[in-house]
Amino acid sequence: MQQRGRFITLEGSEGVGKSTNLAWVAQWLAARGIDVICTREPGGTPRAEAIRELLLSSEADEPLDADAELLLVFAARAQHLAQRIRPALEQGTWVLCDRFTDATFAYQGGGRGIDAVRIGELERFVQRGLEPDLTLLLDMPVEAAQRRLQGRLEANGQGRDRFEQEHVAFFEAVRLAYLERAKVAPERVAVIDADAPLATVQGRLSACLEEHLRTWQ
Amino acid sequence: MQQRGRFITLEGSEGVGKSTNLAWVAQWLAARGIDVICTREPGGTPRAEAIRELLLSSEADEPLDADAELLLVFAARAQHLAQRIRPALEQGTWVLCDRFTDATFAYQGGGRGIDAVRIGELERFVQRGLEPDLTLLLDMPVEAAQRRLQGRLEANGQGRDRFEQEHVAFFEAVRLAYLERAKVAPERVAVIDADAPLATVQGRLSACLEEHLRTWQ
Repeated sequence: MQQRGRFITLEGSEGVGKSTNLAWVAQWLAARGIDVICTREPGGTPRAEAIRELLLSSEADEPLDADAELLLVFAARAQHLAQRIRPALEQGTWVLCDRFTDATFAYQGGGRGIDAVRIGELERFVQRGLEPDLTLLLDMPVEAAQRRLQGRLEANGQGRDRFEQEHVAFFEAVRLAYLERAKVAPERVAVIDADAPLATVQGRLSACLEEHLRTWQ
Repeated sequence: MQQRGRFITLEGSEGVGKSTNLAWVAQWLAARGIDVICTREPGGTPRAEAIRELLLSSEADEPLDADAELLLVFAARAQHLAQRIRPALEQGTWVLCDRFTDATFAYQGGGRGIDAVRIGELERFVQRGLEPDLTLLLDMPVEAAQRRLQGRLEANGQGRDRFEQEHVAFFEAVRLAYLERAKVAPERVAVIDADAPLATVQGRLSACLEEHLRTWQ
């Protein structure tokens, strides 16, 4: 039987500072003696990472159907839950995950326009009631996030993957869908204003985490 | 608007003679002036074939979760329907497909033990009411089919994929689930006794096809 409180997800679109802050949150937890694994979606296990490759690849000469994309996301999630997340939680280990089902509602729902009710069907099918105990949603205006994404890609000499190639209207819809998720589950999703200096953002994250530990530890 | 009658599937487990008879059925239809494409599941388009690779690969060092397998099958199906099957049917072309959703009920349902009700949820989600107009189910005792599969693999110097590596009990369950599908939809699924000389099997297929054309052409 897994203990509640130990499944934390970090959400937000490209450029909001997810990777930097994920590592920081992991260190923050470890510094308090908490045994935590860091993982990501789509991916987190060898087979789920292979599915991630199919999702991000912009090479195939045919468009990926929106339903097929959604089912691939949940296939990777089923594998990740079975092989990594559930076993960790059952052992009492904390799980810190870079994106989870809120991202599906944001990208495949908001971005691709799939009805949230249909996504909810697959959520119940795959998760059977399991959901994060705390979700940290890094939020900032799309323009600012896109500038930061572009800076990172140029600094690393990287190209854009299939999602990063989308246009501003797509990311606006992703952001709105994320904020809608926070609105319907305020007890779980903390919206963190990420359009601020890193130290300020991390002060905000720290306050959320302190409150979470007071409740669950 | 697609015309009814033009979506035909061929089903059966390994070793029943599916490939040989698929080509024969295609020729039989073409000889009657019918414009038909041959395709297969999982696969049938570049992206769906990439998903097939993930499904059949026995290389990864972790087991594939049963729900993940099922979702991958339906992801490939969504892509195949969107990119190949629906466009063909909408143009009036006949579609002859090597395996479809009956195989999912047989392999992931009968073989892996996933509840048929759960498979039915995904069937409705992905197919939105579309189903084959005629299904030719090649049936024979598992022992005979396994002997034929083994002979083919040895003749071609091939190894077994992730499904072909399963044991007799798995294939017995697959066969029973296939026969159950025929029992609940006898107007769609024709069970062809395939444990006979090829000419006899093809005589039986021919009789089914003649009757189908009388109804739909």
